[in-house]
Amino acid sequence: MKPHPLKNIRVVLVSPIYGGNVGAVCRAMKNCGITHLAIVAPRDDFDTFEAQKMALHAVDIFTERQVYPSLAEAVADCGLVIGTTARLGLYRSHAKTPRDIAPRIIETAATTPVAIVFGREDNGLDNDDLARCTSLVQIPSSNLYSSLNLSHAVMICCYEIFLQSNSFDRAAYELSPEAPIKLREKMFEVWREALLAIDFMEEGKADHMMLGIRRVLSRGKLSTSDAKIMIGIARQMLWIANNR
Amino acid sequence: MKPHPLKNIRVVLVSPIYGGNVGAVCRAMKNCGITHLAIVAPRDDFDTFEAQKMALHAVDIFTERQVYPSLAEAVADCGLVIGTTARLGLYRSHAKTPRDIAPRIIETAATTPVAIVFGREDNGLDNDDLARCTSLVQIPSSNLYSSLNLSHAVMICCYEIFLQSNSFDRAAYELSPEAPIKLREKMFEVWREALLAIDFMEEGKADHMMLGIRRVLSRGKLSTSDAKIMIGIARQMLWIANNR
Repeated sequence: MKPHPLKNIRVVLVSPIYGGNVGAVCRAMKNCGITHLAIVAPRDDFDTFEAQKMALHAVDIFTERQVYPSLAEAVADCGLVIGTTARLGLYRSHAKTPRDIAPRIIETAATTPVAIVFGREDNGLDNDDLARCTSLVQIPSSNLYSSLNLSHAVMICCYEIFLQSNSFDRAAYELSPEAPIKLREKMFEVWREALLAIDFMEEGKADHMMLGIRRVLSRGKLSTSDAKIMIGIARQMLWIANNR
Repeated sequence: MKPHPLKNIRVVLVSPIYGGNVGAVCRAMKNCGITHLAIVAPRDDFDTFEAQKMALHAVDIFTERQVYPSLAEAVADCGLVIGTTARLGLYRSHAKTPRDIAPRIIETAATTPVAIVFGREDNGLDNDDLARCTSLVQIPSSNLYSSLNLSHAVMICCYEIFLQSNSFDRAAYELSPEAPIKLREKMFEVWREALLAIDFMEEGKADHMMLGIRRVLSRGKLSTSDAKIMIGIARQMLWIANNR
């Protein structure tokens, strides 16, 4: 059995400065099912305690991080090395967006490790680092403030990869099915009857008014249980109107 | 000239705990061209200094934040109120993804303010807060660790809105505006009264039942004229019930 592509994704941080950022990176990764963290050339003054604190339930990712002296060694076995850059310019003009490149990342990661590389908080990746990358991505951002916080940049990249991997469980979103047309028509029929019975509308204007009601109840999803609630309300209106 | 939709987007934080998170939220917002920050019920021990430090070049967003005593007041003029939730459950099962709902946010924001609401770092939004929301979103995340850092959650939502705004077609907003929250709340108030009056529900179950009604009437767009029709129906129910 092939490993899940997400298990072949490696987040690589080059000489990160702030422990809190690295902890937040671990959390962003784990939120997206990505667990391999590599640190290149860690700084002597790195605040390990702060990293552990910010990682919260993703502290396992920090604990199991791999450390490498150079970027070349950190990505030696990778089939695709994606460098992230906030700036465009020489050698940077061909940057794609995370969304554009996510399909290729997942396809590659089905067989070969893929690295996503992030530079230091203050300067990003330098040109030597960029030369080690097979592709560049730039996260779309406002011209007024284009530089993202390190963990935010990791979050966006991991999120796009996670969505592309389809490992997100959509079942939870589809718990209650749309009401079938037959039930909807039943609902509109009972509502028509009820709105006439409570004298909200008269017969001559009923068709027109029902178009408005249909519009209101059809704009978004209407589940079977929603339709049943609405039928219940209309029946109760009818009962009250007929028993006064 | 109509304002750009991003100028009509408001990020609303309910009683945030950590100053650093709020600063990081400001940065994420500015990266995405979103500038209106509202804080509901700020805590006495909130660390303003830490917020300013983490905001970096987005400190202007923090400085110009609006403060409100309640969520209802923070969103009173909004046509669409998007609540964010990490959990699924009763009345949360219809959550959309940020990507699904981004087109509707941009379309609405062309004419009417839109609020994106985030709960406290530890507990998220409570059921009362969620009842104020017209729609719910859940950010897709791993089952193994589904809870995002506050500023990461804001980043993902703002990023999806920002991407959508670039493809925004100004010709597409020749539509009637969403009903503002004040009118919606009036509508739910009259409906609550009417459903009690026709004995559709009893007082003890009214709050619970009204969550369902809110959900049904908030799934899709609800225009000002739609809301007025629904208010008219409820008033007529009341009249019938009181005059039998």
